[in-house]
Amino acid sequence: MKILDGKKISQDIKDELKKLVSNRIANGLKKPHLAAIIVGSDGASLTYVGSKVRACDYVGYDSTLIQLEESITEELLLEQINRLNKDKSVDGFIVQLPLPKGIDEQKILLAIDPNKDVDGFHPTNFGKMSLEMESFIPATPYGIIELLDRYKIETSGKNCVVIGRSNIVGRPVSILLSQKSKKGDATVTLAHSRTKNLKSITRNADIIISALGIPEFLKSDMVKEGVVIIDVGITRVPNDSSPKGYSIIGDVDYKKVSKKSIAITPVPGGVGPMTISMLLKNTFLACQRKD
Amino acid sequence: MKILDGKKISQDIKDELKKLVSNRIANGLKKPHLAAIIVGSDGASLTYVGSKVRACDYVGYDSTLIQLEESITEELLLEQINRLNKDKSVDGFIVQLPLPKGIDEQKILLAIDPNKDVDGFHPTNFGKMSLEMESFIPATPYGIIELLDRYKIETSGKNCVVIGRSNIVGRPVSILLSQKSKKGDATVTLAHSRTKNLKSITRNADIIISALGIPEFLKSDMVKEGVVIIDVGITRVPNDSSPKGYSIIGDVDYKKVSKKSIAITPVPGGVGPMTISMLLKNTFLACQRKD
Repeated sequence: MKILDGKKISQDIKDELKKLVSNRIANGLKKPHLAAIIVGSDGASLTYVGSKVRACDYVGYDSTLIQLEESITEELLLEQINRLNKDKSVDGFIVQLPLPKGIDEQKILLAIDPNKDVDGFHPTNFGKMSLEMESFIPATPYGIIELLDRYKIETSGKNCVVIGRSNIVGRPVSILLSQKSKKGDATVTLAHSRTKNLKSITRNADIIISALGIPEFLKSDMVKEGVVIIDVGITRVPNDSSPKGYSIIGDVDYKKVSKKSIAITPVPGGVGPMTISMLLKNTFLACQRKD
Repeated sequence: MKILDGKKISQDIKDELKKLVSNRIANGLKKPHLAAIIVGSDGASLTYVGSKVRACDYVGYDSTLIQLEESITEELLLEQINRLNKDKSVDGFIVQLPLPKGIDEQKILLAIDPNKDVDGFHPTNFGKMSLEMESFIPATPYGIIELLDRYKIETSGKNCVVIGRSNIVGRPVSILLSQKSKKGDATVTLAHSRTKNLKSITRNADIIISALGIPEFLKSDMVKEGVVIIDVGITRVPNDSSPKGYSIIGDVDYKKVSKKSIAITPVPGGVGPMTISMLLKNTFLACQRKD
């Protein structure tokens, strides 16, 4: 059984990007520059954005963090987005989700210039990705594909079941894996809350990608021997014995399922760390496009 | 066994649109206006575009047909598209595919204003559709969903297999059917040329949508009793005994498969006629948006 070490691969990618940035500088080209807008002071969101800024520092990007009050109006937030759209020094930017109630997330995402939308959430990027045109691929599905690729896990002709149909993970990864490409060509089934007899579907799967957010949902009797498991779940579960007061638990009953798997991502340290590296990759691409 | 009569439903939709147009005129509003660009003189393309123009006449839309020489340059074609983008009298337009070699189809599609892209092929529309935002849905998948809906065929929780992953049929219908909506909520498997053991997959399907273009590919031993069959294939097969010299043959071995089906689309007269009606629906929507 092979552990798909997202932490290591993520570090490899960051080191590759670091070199690429050095090369750019040596060639007199500008550093990539990522900006992030965060509204309010949600703990998890601050942690995520903080890691993104630190990752920028590590690889040698410029970064700008724009912290806005929880009480900001939609109009003022749109103004900030417009400013970043126009700012030529910024290659790409993200708006950390979720946004406070009263702000229309869809309107905000649509306001971002698709050429700077390094999260890949704008419909133009989502459509380009679906239609196999060059685009920014959302970080989590991009990270999953990269992880499978770096561990040389064959996907072509495999039965792949994606559990969960969110716009940021399940849906895009189901599209990518079924495309005609080196990292795709799988026969993909997208399962979700309305799926009946899920067990009979997952038991036929060569590869299972679970993006539900229900701790230890996927049990060992739901998978076949020799399965590959990608666990996207990261649920915080209270845990008094942990210094943080909580543990991060995946969608998969790791202890038992890993015994039947030929490869599996741990939680934490699997898909999670990949997302930041893929965001950095998108930012590099955005910068490079402008050369 | 119920025959899903696309010809009849398509006629119903056209009659509904005809009434809506009369109402618009009675209320002093403008008629919808569809324009179509056709390059060259391919027989099938001319037939398709001709039917679209006749359908416009029937429902009371204005229509403009722009016929361009096979030898037109990409640059001049882009100029025509720009002209239609700017023409306020035109609500929506289509560029009939395929285009002659030497013209970059992707570049052409990207040049169409997404607000006038009633074929729904522009990535912005494709992305909006995928992300469940209001958009123009490509006519064939839209027609399939409408046909299932009008015949009250339950999709929620059903195992649905889509065969073929084209950008204009298989991919979008697989997305639509798996979305959380009245006409979706199915567990969808997207199968394609690299799929292994297709028979074992299709034999588990409650609904099969075949969009391969291989005459009589789907045999009766590949389906279970009680299946619903949507046959999107329309291949011209030489036939000396037909006055046209050819017959239109679907992907499904209709004679035998229909015996096991609870509902099935014929070819011709199934999905085919639906596409024009859905194009007209999109054009109506484009017109209405501008009121």
